[in-house]
Amino acid sequence: MKEERRKNPQWQRLLQILKENSLKFGDFTLTSGKKSKYYIDGKMTTLHPEGASLVAEIILDILKEIPVEAVGGPMIGADPIVGAVVAGSHSCGRPLGGFIVRKETKSHGTSKRIEGPFQKGCKGAIVEDVVTTGSSLLKAVDVVREAGGEVVMVIALLDRLQGADEVLREAGLPFEPIFTLKDLGL
Amino acid sequence: MKEERRKNPQWQRLLQILKENSLKFGDFTLTSGKKSKYYIDGKMTTLHPEGASLVAEIILDILKEIPVEAVGGPMIGADPIVGAVVAGSHSCGRPLGGFIVRKETKSHGTSKRIEGPFQKGCKGAIVEDVVTTGSSLLKAVDVVREAGGEVVMVIALLDRLQGADEVLREAGLPFEPIFTLKDLGL
Repeated sequence: MKEERRKNPQWQRLLQILKENSLKFGDFTLTSGKKSKYYIDGKMTTLHPEGASLVAEIILDILKEIPVEAVGGPMIGADPIVGAVVAGSHSCGRPLGGFIVRKETKSHGTSKRIEGPFQKGCKGAIVEDVVTTGSSLLKAVDVVREAGGEVVMVIALLDRLQGADEVLREAGLPFEPIFTLKDLGL
Repeated sequence: MKEERRKNPQWQRLLQILKENSLKFGDFTLTSGKKSKYYIDGKMTTLHPEGASLVAEIILDILKEIPVEAVGGPMIGADPIVGAVVAGSHSCGRPLGGFIVRKETKSHGTSKRIEGPFQKGCKGAIVEDVVTTGSSLLKAVDVVREAGGEVVMVIALLDRLQGADEVLREAGLPFEPIFTLKDLGL
């Protein structure tokens, strides 16, 4: 399935947008604390008009055969992706609710850790822009599971190939990165 | 223009979704610290498949004649709206970049306060789900202005009518709430 996807013109075009907009070279400290000579700013692609549209289309295509009712993920990486996928899901006739997992419970309003129309028993896919070790994704998965939800799949725009695949597999989660570092030639 | 919008079937349908999904009664403390007998959970509409799609369509319609290059707003309320608008802007042939204004500068990666393809000189519209006093919107406007951007309009899914209109007008900002509390019969 992955190899087939690579031949898809949408996949090719999204890779070009990702390379042109999201890849930066310099001295960076990642969320995990690790140092890196490059940084992949996923939001330069997920907030790019054509990028957002393609990410949503490709995710909806991956989920076509998967029994999910909702798409969500950890803020802030997942947020624009979720908005685009949810809106696109209506247009393509396969409605999916969205949810956003906060880093901590907010102290006002409804005091929810999961925002959006998420319900107990809900089968959801977790999405993220750039995945490094997978630890922030796993936290979001735990929050969803604690709230009585089931995570059926994890999809990332880009896997930096720093262990997320193993971590997610150990947690029993099918992981589908749209791209990996290798696709960027890194 | 606003009166004309009310006759629009999309506007009517979105109002129905908002009433059915976002309006909760109980004892709540708002972000502003104020107590309230009801809470409007905007994300139950902006993360609803048809809701997300309609919010994006209506915002793109409001912006049709406005010279903007980007749409953004303060996290977390704006995030899914921005994702849906940006993806939708590509499909409707009027591409708009997106940006998200963080509450504070993050300490890792690119250390940006504004995420996404925002550039100095950029003409942007600020969006938000539910607006109460307008103070968090104004903070986002200040961040955009400090970064060299121009805010040409502020659009909210719902104005709770707690002073935002005056505050934004004083700051020289045209404000377009899609709905106000009155539309909810409150």
